[in-house]
Amino acid sequence: MSLVLGIDPGIARLGYGLVRERPDRSLGFVDCGVITTPADWELEDRLQEVNSDIGALLDEHRPEAVAMEQLTFGSNSPTAFAVGCVCGVVMSNAAGRGIKVSLYAPAQVKQQLTGTGRADKQQMQQMVRLTLSLDAIPRPDDAADGLAVALCHLYRQKFRTVVFQQTGDSA
Amino acid sequence: MSLVLGIDPGIARLGYGLVRERPDRSLGFVDCGVITTPADWELEDRLQEVNSDIGALLDEHRPEAVAMEQLTFGSNSPTAFAVGCVCGVVMSNAAGRGIKVSLYAPAQVKQQLTGTGRADKQQMQQMVRLTLSLDAIPRPDDAADGLAVALCHLYRQKFRTVVFQQTGDSA
Repeated sequence: MSLVLGIDPGIARLGYGLVRERPDRSLGFVDCGVITTPADWELEDRLQEVNSDIGALLDEHRPEAVAMEQLTFGSNSPTAFAVGCVCGVVMSNAAGRGIKVSLYAPAQVKQQLTGTGRADKQQMQQMVRLTLSLDAIPRPDDAADGLAVALCHLYRQKFRTVVFQQTGDSA
Repeated sequence: MSLVLGIDPGIARLGYGLVRERPDRSLGFVDCGVITTPADWELEDRLQEVNSDIGALLDEHRPEAVAMEQLTFGSNSPTAFAVGCVCGVVMSNAAGRGIKVSLYAPAQVKQQLTGTGRADKQQMQQMVRLTLSLDAIPRPDDAADGLAVALCHLYRQKFRTVVFQQTGDSA
């Protein structure tokens, strides 16, 4: 059984979602939520808060892998800088616990879940809901985004396993 | 007496320099060097290494403040992302020890040390050498850059103190 923590990084709100792959290979919802930090705190204190909360999350659930949406730059904004900082904090924290981190571009996550890199937010959320057999779309949006990244990672792992088994069969 | 750790962030090489303001307000060299991480390591492991080394540096010297050159984005490169991650790791680590972090744009550091935001690398290095009464320019370059950021911070603090005292006198 494989437990993955998916993360949609942010400084004001970081979304996270935990998905488990069951022995029968089906995917099950475990938990989701957001880590928030006050806008009037200094950046270093907000990052330390994220670090502390991520550490608590990793200690509580002990996932085997962390999957995170990779920030795409292009704008020289303070927000982009802060989100990059958050990514560093998450990665360093996970590595300190011996947990591997995989990064996925937003378009990769959309592609894995819906078959197209151009899916809109609502399509993505519906796919998360259907895949995890949930009654409603997980709220808030950032938490659903965290689940989507975890699903993306598990899909890719599955695909790799299948390819490997096929190769093994034909060898 | 005020001890400042200046940092020029980087993932392959992070330069640092420690500068002390003595009771007579003169500035003294304490230490400088680089933290390096192997290029063939996973990013999260390199960040964890930086985190560990920065923690050791802060524990050894116990500076009152950390001053760091702020990454300017504009390029969507993996290196820019990695350096942003490093900044986050440094800031979170310092905040966890109750140490305040100040960020300075490269042009600000140049302006403070040489009077112009367009100074070249050699001018900067000579100013670091002269200000700290060193026989030679500190090597490697990244270490000199770390010292420059620490000096920038101390100059700004001095300026603030003078302004405050003058205001106090006239009040």
